[in-house]
Amino acid sequence: MAERLRDIAHVSAVELFSPVLEETVRFFTDQMAMEVVDRRGDSVYLHTWDDYERFSVKVTGAATSGIGRTWLRARSPEALERRVAAIERAGLGEGWSKDEPAYGPVFHFTDPDGHQLGVYWETQRYVASDETRPSLKNQAARFPGRGSNVRRLDHINFLARDVPQAETFVSDALSGRPSEQIVLDDGTKAAIWYTFSDKSYDVVYTRDWTGSEGRLHHIAFATDTREDILRAADVFLEAGIHIETGPHKHAIQQTFFLYVYEPGGNRIELCNAGARLLLAPDHEVVTWTEAERAKGQAWGLKTIQTFHTHGTPPVAEAEWA
Amino acid sequence: MAERLRDIAHVSAVELFSPVLEETVRFFTDQMAMEVVDRRGDSVYLHTWDDYERFSVKVTGAATSGIGRTWLRARSPEALERRVAAIERAGLGEGWSKDEPAYGPVFHFTDPDGHQLGVYWETQRYVASDETRPSLKNQAARFPGRGSNVRRLDHINFLARDVPQAETFVSDALSGRPSEQIVLDDGTKAAIWYTFSDKSYDVVYTRDWTGSEGRLHHIAFATDTREDILRAADVFLEAGIHIETGPHKHAIQQTFFLYVYEPGGNRIELCNAGARLLLAPDHEVVTWTEAERAKGQAWGLKTIQTFHTHGTPPVAEAEWA
Amino acid sequence: MAERLRDIAHVSAVELFSPVLEETVRFFTDQMAMEVVDRRGDSVYLHTWDDYERFSVKVTGAATSGIGRTWLRARSPEALERRVAAIERAGLGEGWSKDEPAYGPVFHFTDPDGHQLGVYWETQRYVASDETRPSLKNQAARFPGRGSNVRRLDHINFLARDVPQAETFVSDALSGRPSEQIVLDDGTKAAIWYTFSDKSYDVVYTRDWTGSEGRLHHIAFATDTREDILRAADVFLEAGIHIETGPHKHAIQQTFFLYVYEPGGNRIELCNAGARLLLAPDHEVVTWTEAERAKGQAWGLKTIQTFHTHGTPPVAEAEWA
Amino acid sequence: MAERLRDIAHVSAVELFSPVLEETVRFFTDQMAMEVVDRRGDSVYLHTWDDYERFSVKVTGAATSGIGRTWLRARSPEALERRVAAIERAGLGEGWSKDEPAYGPVFHFTDPDGHQLGVYWETQRYVASDETRPSLKNQAARFPGRGSNVRRLDHINFLARDVPQAETFVSDALSGRPSEQIVLDDGTKAAIWYTFSDKSYDVVYTRDWTGSEGRLHHIAFATDTREDILRAADVFLEAGIHIETGPHKHAIQQTFFLYVYEPGGNRIELCNAGARLLLAPDHEVVTWTEAERAKGQAWGLKTIQTFHTHGTPPVAEAEWA
Repeated sequence: MAERLRDIAHVSAVELFSPVLEETVRFFTDQMAMEVVDRRGDSVYLHTWDDYERFSVKVTGAATSGIGRTWLRARSPEALERRVAAIERAGLGEGWSKDEPAYGPVFHFTDPDGHQLGVYWETQRYVASDETRPSLKNQAARFPGRGSNVRRLDHINFLARDVPQAETFVSDALSGRPSEQIVLDDGTKAAIWYTFSDKSYDVVYTRDWTGSEGRLHHIAFATDTREDILRAADVFLEAGIHIETGPHKHAIQQTFFLYVYEPGGNRIELCNAGARLLLAPDHEVVTWTEAERAKGQAWGLKTIQTFHTHGTPPVAEAEWA
Repeated sequence: MAERLRDIAHVSAVELFSPVLEETVRFFTDQMAMEVVDRRGDSVYLHTWDDYERFSVKVTGAATSGIGRTWLRARSPEALERRVAAIERAGLGEGWSKDEPAYGPVFHFTDPDGHQLGVYWETQRYVASDETRPSLKNQAARFPGRGSNVRRLDHINFLARDVPQAETFVSDALSGRPSEQIVLDDGTKAAIWYTFSDKSYDVVYTRDWTGSEGRLHHIAFATDTREDILRAADVFLEAGIHIETGPHKHAIQQTFFLYVYEPGGNRIELCNAGARLLLAPDHEVVTWTEAERAKGQAWGLKTIQTFHTHGTPPVAEAEWA
Repeated sequence: MAERLRDIAHVSAVELFSPVLEETVRFFTDQMAMEVVDRRGDSVYLHTWDDYERFSVKVTGAATSGIGRTWLRARSPEALERRVAAIERAGLGEGWSKDEPAYGPVFHFTDPDGHQLGVYWETQRYVASDETRPSLKNQAARFPGRGSNVRRLDHINFLARDVPQAETFVSDALSGRPSEQIVLDDGTKAAIWYTFSDKSYDVVYTRDWTGSEGRLHHIAFATDTREDILRAADVFLEAGIHIETGPHKHAIQQTFFLYVYEPGGNRIELCNAGARLLLAPDHEVVTWTEAERAKGQAWGLKTIQTFHTHGTPPVAEAEWA
Repeated sequence: MAERLRDIAHVSAVELFSPVLEETVRFFTDQMAMEVVDRRGDSVYLHTWDDYERFSVKVTGAATSGIGRTWLRARSPEALERRVAAIERAGLGEGWSKDEPAYGPVFHFTDPDGHQLGVYWETQRYVASDETRPSLKNQAARFPGRGSNVRRLDHINFLARDVPQAETFVSDALSGRPSEQIVLDDGTKAAIWYTFSDKSYDVVYTRDWTGSEGRLHHIAFATDTREDILRAADVFLEAGIHIETGPHKHAIQQTFFLYVYEPGGNRIELCNAGARLLLAPDHEVVTWTEAERAKGQAWGLKTIQTFHTHGTPPVAEAEWA
């Protein structure tokens, strides 16, 4: 068997759609401690304080919520070539784009579920201004001391009509390694967590109960401590941001979590993994059964119902219930 | 230029020498929450609760303190082959060993400073007993709820007579990437932090002020939170363990740290990086000058004098002062 | 109006009944980091590491769960006299007892709901042994570094058939000041939080939905940090202790909480108030309505159903449902 | 012996002098998360988010740093009468004032060292505006989610030429109870910590090495968690605020601390006591010797030299060295 290389370095940025663009931007700046680094047309680019690239989130005004493109950085020029070739083999390539000024050439593609992605090598670094220059030169921007102080984008959780179809693609075309998964009693996979890195996951696919395609479950930002997440809960409470569930600890992946809906409707997670990493290069996927899932989260919290019914863009219940 | 691959997955385990073997073992079990998993001859093998392999530390009774071998796991069989070839090219290979029952064949070598290392692919997983079986199956052993609750081995900091010599070796033979370094006013490098992974460092080389070779500055264990480290300080205080410095935050690498001496004399660090990772595949090394170092640690703590004079095994001051 | 003095210093200790005495004791020693300081007959006395008196909990073997006596320390000999006189006026005094060797004379009484209490002035200090002597002489015992590391007994929450009856007694006879309360839409009080100190509550009365008398909702222990409580959740998970709800933050009193059932069935809370104190000597009681209660806890967690149905000793559902 | 009552409820507010008024105000608003609630003449009134009264700090523009008046709230009208009588007996009363609009009549006095104080009963509550109204009605103002998020004023540490003289006054006239003290080898007291409440200290007197009178060592604000203090250290680092020492844990009183100089020069402490309270009504003062003090702070940090040489207003070294 050919040696499997880790060709994707990390998830770089995600484009979110919002019907209330400026409210969503204020959520990211005020409660999520991010900085507006650019505005182009209907889009606003935001940066967390320790992402090394120019932006972490692109929010675009739209009729409804949901996601646009998700960007992945290749680990090297050679890795980019390999991934482009593999994506082309899968028949899902869409060609090169130079639309994003913060990146060099980006190869556009979709996953089998229709989520838009892009992979690239060349990138621009975040350059601090006088206002955002950090005291310690080994971090990207000044520590904000504001709201939840999330450090960096952590992962994205897609909803997918057909998880097994996504499985083949993420594994073969993107070199993702599954770390944990839910397998239902009928043998089908309801969710798979993939890692490209030493983090225990970077991209997650969860079955879309509506049968829709291309939707978002949530994007997540990492905080340095669990206390940051407890503090964030107070911040969201005071700001009138809807807290869906948490803070609590997931059984799967053991992530300490808090889920909120940003004003545009997209679910946002704040997550902390402690010192947990997936250092084993030959990690065997951990499988969770329906019975195990029924136990709820790590410390016994029952999984909230909306966790299974809220995705973006919304789908009218009549269309699937 | 050839594509640089990440051939080393992580530092797996370290052998420490102790003149007071059982006291050192009690330190690791009682204050560091580790489990004795094996005893062979004069050696005791200990495991932190979330290392996936059989052991994290091997303590061997000896006349004095210091380190024996440091084990590195290759990322794949092919990666192991590449590293063995590169080490052989550097003329520092010592051949294959099957001495450690928890590993398959280990290729023994030294770095240019004489530190003993080993690299391997085949390994045995930690298998939980009834007493150590975790409630959540995605962790290695039961959460101990004892002492400092360190999760896993994090890194090793070697002292070296000739840091630049080590630099070439770690970079070329081990595929290490420097992430941060101290460059003195005379242009020489006093310390280099290397990473094999997405953590910002795995192995550090610091100039040995005594001109000795093969010595240890410290080994470090990661905790999930900074609070774990604050709690550990109380635990060490109550146990009569010498706290050298901390808790505080390093400027370099921004690690939240606490340094103690285990009863045998070796310096042990407890470290927490928060959500800080080195996700950039093309990270440029961050250089710290003498003037910057003189500012002390991140929040202003002056670097304690013993940090520059205590290494193991000890060297009589007359031999170098 | 006569000056109201604070005649009760604090809740000192509580007697719990357990049908599985030794399991309950192990819960308190292993997960709650307490020390067995005495055994007399069927009773085991336990001490948290920073209570200055001899014991914090007395566990007595019994046919079922529930509470025995709750001890209150008077603030001075004069305060004790005043309280005894007031209790006698209320017709609930039972006379002096010398049964507890750790206390001087204790005046026994009940509240109108039949809970047994005692108030006293003379007490014995906790005296550390060689094994429990702390490094810092301004704490009672050595920091245990074990389990949840609760620091001290914090409060008791009684169930009462008739909360208004208790209200008059606690206010007049015990000099308790109400800090927060729940008033139902029909004007009746469903719960009142009382303080004797600068803490925002020491004793709570909650309506017993079964119409029974003399039962316990929970007793609570204070931790130094919220992180201690998050860690405790892992400790309880690993030990197979039933976690009822939490960790989360109450809206009422804003306490960060975790509720578990000790093996004998009694509900135990771990609580943290941060730096919140009730420093205002003329604090006006904060009233919560049914509508406000329906919102759940501070960050939106729905109050778990068993919170309204589990008390000790148990009452068969047929008797009240 | 007459019953000792606790006639002072707490330290309410402190007036600080600053030669850079607006910079000092920005420090309090931006890094200390306080709100400007009033401006009168050269004075700016600031409020921490959970103080129930109108203000916590009054900053007055002046030629140099230092303190003006310190306000103490009596526990009742009767307590106020008793304290005024006792202060008059000590010959240090200065009469009633109605200068502060947030208070009713304030009885002005000095301690024997010349620090200006005031004691009062009537006060105005903090009233939240639309911008500062909290989501939970049992806290004074909205949780700021900014900078260090200190919750409330905690204590004041005076420098005094003659600590024993202060001792008699604080004990007799103010009903303060000493909780801990430093007694030098020659038998003189170098510092005494006094409490009026269940907190382990509210006012501290430390010998002024310069022989000056009426100076300030520091004022302190309580945070909910130790993590808040670690976060504050980053906030101060980024804002260019001088960090003098910490974060670390004091041996005396065991306070987790961080000391900074506000831009006007006054030393400000952020402090956290965890769940530590002084619940014993008959607490015996804990005495620390010179030898014990020489060990440094709880976890071994050497006490920084400026801790013994910096007070405000400054005294030229020539005048005392």
